[in-house]
Amino acid sequence: MPVLELNAADQYVVVTGDTPLLEVYAALPEGLVPPFPPVELPGGVGGLVLRGGFAQTFFFPAEVLGLVLCTPDGREVRAGGRVVKNVQGYDLVRPVVGSFGLLGEVREVVLRLRPARARGLARREGRLEDLSEPLPRFVWQDAAWVYVFHYGHPREVERFAEAFGGEALAEGLDYTPRFPNGMGVGEGPLRDRRFAWTDGGERPPVPEVFWRLARALGLA
Amino acid sequence: MPVLELNAADQYVVVTGDTPLLEVYAALPEGLVPPFPPVELPGGVGGLVLRGGFAQTFFFPAEVLGLVLCTPDGREVRAGGRVVKNVQGYDLVRPVVGSFGLLGEVREVVLRLRPARARGLARREGRLEDLSEPLPRFVWQDAAWVYVFHYGHPREVERFAEAFGGEALAEGLDYTPRFPNGMGVGEGPLRDRRFAWTDGGERPPVPEVFWRLARALGLA
Repeated sequence: MPVLELNAADQYVVVTGDTPLLEVYAALPEGLVPPFPPVELPGGVGGLVLRGGFAQTFFFPAEVLGLVLCTPDGREVRAGGRVVKNVQGYDLVRPVVGSFGLLGEVREVVLRLRPARARGLARREGRLEDLSEPLPRFVWQDAAWVYVFHYGHPREVERFAEAFGGEALAEGLDYTPRFPNGMGVGEGPLRDRRFAWTDGGERPPVPEVFWRLARALGLA
Repeated sequence: MPVLELNAADQYVVVTGDTPLLEVYAALPEGLVPPFPPVELPGGVGGLVLRGGFAQTFFFPAEVLGLVLCTPDGREVRAGGRVVKNVQGYDLVRPVVGSFGLLGEVREVVLRLRPARARGLARREGRLEDLSEPLPRFVWQDAAWVYVFHYGHPREVERFAEAFGGEALAEGLDYTPRFPNGMGVGEGPLRDRRFAWTDGGERPPVPEVFWRLARALGLA
């Protein structure tokens, strides 16, 4: 479950699908962050990608630069690349992101890294919906608590922290014990702006046209 | 060929696929810009989307919030939505962007708009590859000239203009007379960071796995 390649100059990291999220954080140099908050979730980076990310307030699929997909009929497919400007079309990366396993499993992922001279994780009592714009990079709810994680220029991070209030937290929350049967969509205390997440939850309803794509890649 | 809906508050516009690019510019209020420079290209917004954009230095597919696709077997498919936070997975929008018509034609497009308190188009003699980071939002080459279009905060736009030098241009260049047989990829004087564009040019080579997706949507 390793980090396969880290390129700080070109700001990307290549990891196997089963790499835990916090292992990615541990492998990065100070000043670079991946497109997920410093929490552990089921299924590692591959699981995260198949669920379409967690808690982000930005367009997560753009941060997945490339991947190796193992299709349901057992073929291995490389899609995308290692740098943003290589995005040329015939995009197979983005439909895989948030596909909840329908197009196959993710063996390897190339993630874009972003510069973060400062960063901060905090929580306070309240509701996700009551946060005001501009939103931090990540926001989520756990029962009565709202969590935010932001990074960037030190002054900006400080401004966000002051506006939010609450208590600062150490990085490294582990949500995996909540999901012994897998992380799916359904009523539960943990939710972000897209979904509420629950143990053993379902995948969201699949549009008919997406089933056709899935069948094309060998799903029975 | 109309602009169907303009929502300045939520920063999106809905247009038919055949809407000319400069008509979109003309329909927008001062201070909002679409994800393409103020130039006319063949095929309107639908053509632009199928080619994966023009001259952008950012991740263009993220700016296409939704679309109506007419698949090769004649079905009409709605994909995506109208706001960024509705991106939920099973993404059929992004594979269509840059698909060069392989998955069907684009009947309708929802484009994200960005705030632009200032903007500027300029050119100078030189080479695209010699521009230094950070790059303006759009850069392209036409024969011996480099063109840049940037927008944003007035001070930032001014900074970019000073760094670039050259001559400021009026918006509204029309490149369509160069492409009587359609805009495709191939050697020619007009190029961006992805491709050189030529009259009657081809689509880029299609990966085998993408053919499978195309066949799933009814391509013979």
